[in-house]
Amino acid sequence: MTNYPIQVRLSETKKQKPLSDQLEFGRVFTDHMFVADYFEGEGWVDHRIVPYEPLQIDPAATIFHYGQTVFEGLKAYIGKDGKVLLFRPEENMLRMNKSSERLCMPQIDEENALEALKQLITVDKEWIPTTEGTSLYIRPFMVATEPYLGVSPAKKYKFIIILSPVGSYYKEGIHPVKILVENEYVRAVAGGTGTAKTAGNYAAGLRAQEIADRKGYSQVLWLDGVERKYIEEVGSMNVFFKINGEVVTPMLNGSILEGITRKSILELIRYWDIPVSERRISIEEVYEAHRSGTLEEAFGTGTAAVVSPIGELNWRDEKIIVNNGETGELSKKLYDVLTGIQTGELEDPFGWVTEVTETAVVKSV
Amino acid sequence: MTNYPIQVRLSETKKQKPLSDQLEFGRVFTDHMFVADYFEGEGWVDHRIVPYEPLQIDPAATIFHYGQTVFEGLKAYIGKDGKVLLFRPEENMLRMNKSSERLCMPQIDEENALEALKQLITVDKEWIPTTEGTSLYIRPFMVATEPYLGVSPAKKYKFIIILSPVGSYYKEGIHPVKILVENEYVRAVAGGTGTAKTAGNYAAGLRAQEIADRKGYSQVLWLDGVERKYIEEVGSMNVFFKINGEVVTPMLNGSILEGITRKSILELIRYWDIPVSERRISIEEVYEAHRSGTLEEAFGTGTAAVVSPIGELNWRDEKIIVNNGETGELSKKLYDVLTGIQTGELEDPFGWVTEVTETAVVKSV
Ligand SMILES: Cc1ncc(COP(=O)(O)O)c(C=O)c1O
Ligand SMILES: Cc1ncc(COP(=O)(O)O)c(C=O)c1O
Repeated sequence: MTNYPIQVRLSETKKQKPLSDQLEFGRVFTDHMFVADYFEGEGWVDHRIVPYEPLQIDPAATIFHYGQTVFEGLKAYIGKDGKVLLFRPEENMLRMNKSSERLCMPQIDEENALEALKQLITVDKEWIPTTEGTSLYIRPFMVATEPYLGVSPAKKYKFIIILSPVGSYYKEGIHPVKILVENEYVRAVAGGTGTAKTAGNYAAGLRAQEIADRKGYSQVLWLDGVERKYIEEVGSMNVFFKINGEVVTPMLNGSILEGITRKSILELIRYWDIPVSERRISIEEVYEAHRSGTLEEAFGTGTAAVVSPIGELNWRDEKIIVNNGETGELSKKLYDVLTGIQTGELEDPFGWVTEVTETAVVKSV
Repeated sequence: MTNYPIQVRLSETKKQKPLSDQLEFGRVFTDHMFVADYFEGEGWVDHRIVPYEPLQIDPAATIFHYGQTVFEGLKAYIGKDGKVLLFRPEENMLRMNKSSERLCMPQIDEENALEALKQLITVDKEWIPTTEGTSLYIRPFMVATEPYLGVSPAKKYKFIIILSPVGSYYKEGIHPVKILVENEYVRAVAGGTGTAKTAGNYAAGLRAQEIADRKGYSQVLWLDGVERKYIEEVGSMNVFFKINGEVVTPMLNGSILEGITRKSILELIRYWDIPVSERRISIEEVYEAHRSGTLEEAFGTGTAAVVSPIGELNWRDEKIIVNNGETGELSKKLYDVLTGIQTGELEDPFGWVTEVTETAVVKSV
């Protein structure tokens, strides 16, 4: 099935697995990880699955000082008949390479990376939780490890994949959240790194998120950094509005992340023949639609929550309640259909789902 | 002299020191480093000077994924009579705390950090190069180490100081460099992290720098991310222009770094009664001044190069030569006076220089 050689060194001890109903997000990691090293002139070498353990990195490594790093996030689900399913994983590998290009980091072989990911999941298959709403979160990432304080692209990198069993994003099922529109802080601006999945964008967002938390809001809605008028994203999610029967989402403008859930939702909506447009949308327009009674729904989209309905927006202390604070019909349908396809419970007319079958290499361990 | 207890564990082997005339920037590190750990609720603990060695950090640590990190850069010089001198180190500790605030990271005790730095330098004193133009570069930095993939401020950090003997920034003495004005990429924008010394800003700048390198330019001049008109910084330096007898530098606008060299130069210029203003300055104004013959000098300022005269600017393929491509009188004077004060060769009327005297703790090792 593959001729991509990965060395496997299994852990001698096995960690205790958390109970399905006590799972949080990203706190517990499986017994193994995948690692490969990159050296300029040599390329990627020493592809290996090894016990999950601390990385040994020189204190002068680029990652600690100049943030040369990219990452991805996707999920594996246990479907019917115990099949292990991935949702559009090739899109994550493609985006990782796009992010790397922006950060002057080396490209990975997307097929090999996907194969590495599948082998790692197979090794740690017992860790995939099976309760409804749970999944195995997969975090591929690359960091620059060259010990050099000059501000220039590093010549050494590590590509790593770690796995974390995660609980349902909503303990009580899908429910609307309160969002604070951010006026002071900016996540990203065109010409910056907003389209790349790289550390600095998330570091930049922490302060506003902290303030939102304190005020009782679950996420921040980011406005553009130039005019502070146009809607960008919601926390770490893309955002959609349903206004007067039409679904609207901010266009890919060079500062927002090209979400894979966003892309899938656009494909679903077009498949269903619901009017949709990707364009600039101002916060004023959303408030105006609310005033005139045409703002029907609002929701965020991303791998973690899939679809996250917005029940309240607060912009400069003016609060609006969306859809009576209830989950809208379209939000609910998108959530149900997407999670249904992801877990194999619904038919997949788009070919989005990939099954992880055990490969020869792993079988021979 | 101090009652700040630092444990010292000396290296059993000593690395070979590079020859003074072969020193590069940030490639070689001394035998020891300072490390302290932070745990939420407990504060900073386990302050120690230990052999320089790889850090062991969990692959899920915040630093690798969400870039929660800040750093500083300053230099120690061997002055007359073998005295070890630091230039305004308390300003670096202050700025580190300001950066940490923006990144939702814990504050350090500035006095203790300075004491740690002095003790570390004392332990590795033999590493300070003595040839003219060389120095010991000091890199304090803090990284978030909590293994958690949620996007929120970490609860665990490491504060580390490493030391690197560095050569003269200009092998052939101070000389003018060629600068490319950047139109596509943006370093930072108000509301972002530009005023903090944090990794993401440097990661964002790599791509433009790479393009500038390829075109034969030594640094990029950053324009503002909103109107793409106003001058921000030059590479990792603040920037000054002398136009018609007046010195002009971009004001602190929320997106540029508050350089300590910038601050010192402003103080010197005011001390010398030369007209100076901190204000918005557009690239168009600089080109216009050149056309009318009033652009007298341009230079970058920062810890690494101290003062770096600009000999050529290229904006949208229109090149202008500043001061006939020669080092201007003011640039030269500022360089000579600043480096003179830093190395103790000139009198220090401002109280900028701090001597590192050996402390009781280190003596007792
Ligand atoms: C900033 C940001 N926006 C949007 C998304 C949604 O992307 P995706 O649907 O690929 O998960 C994410 C992450 O997942 C993100 O980090
Ligand atoms: C982005 C940036 N601007 C300006 C400077 C100059 O600051 P300082 O004079 O404190 O070294 C630096 C760094 O040293 C920097 O990284």
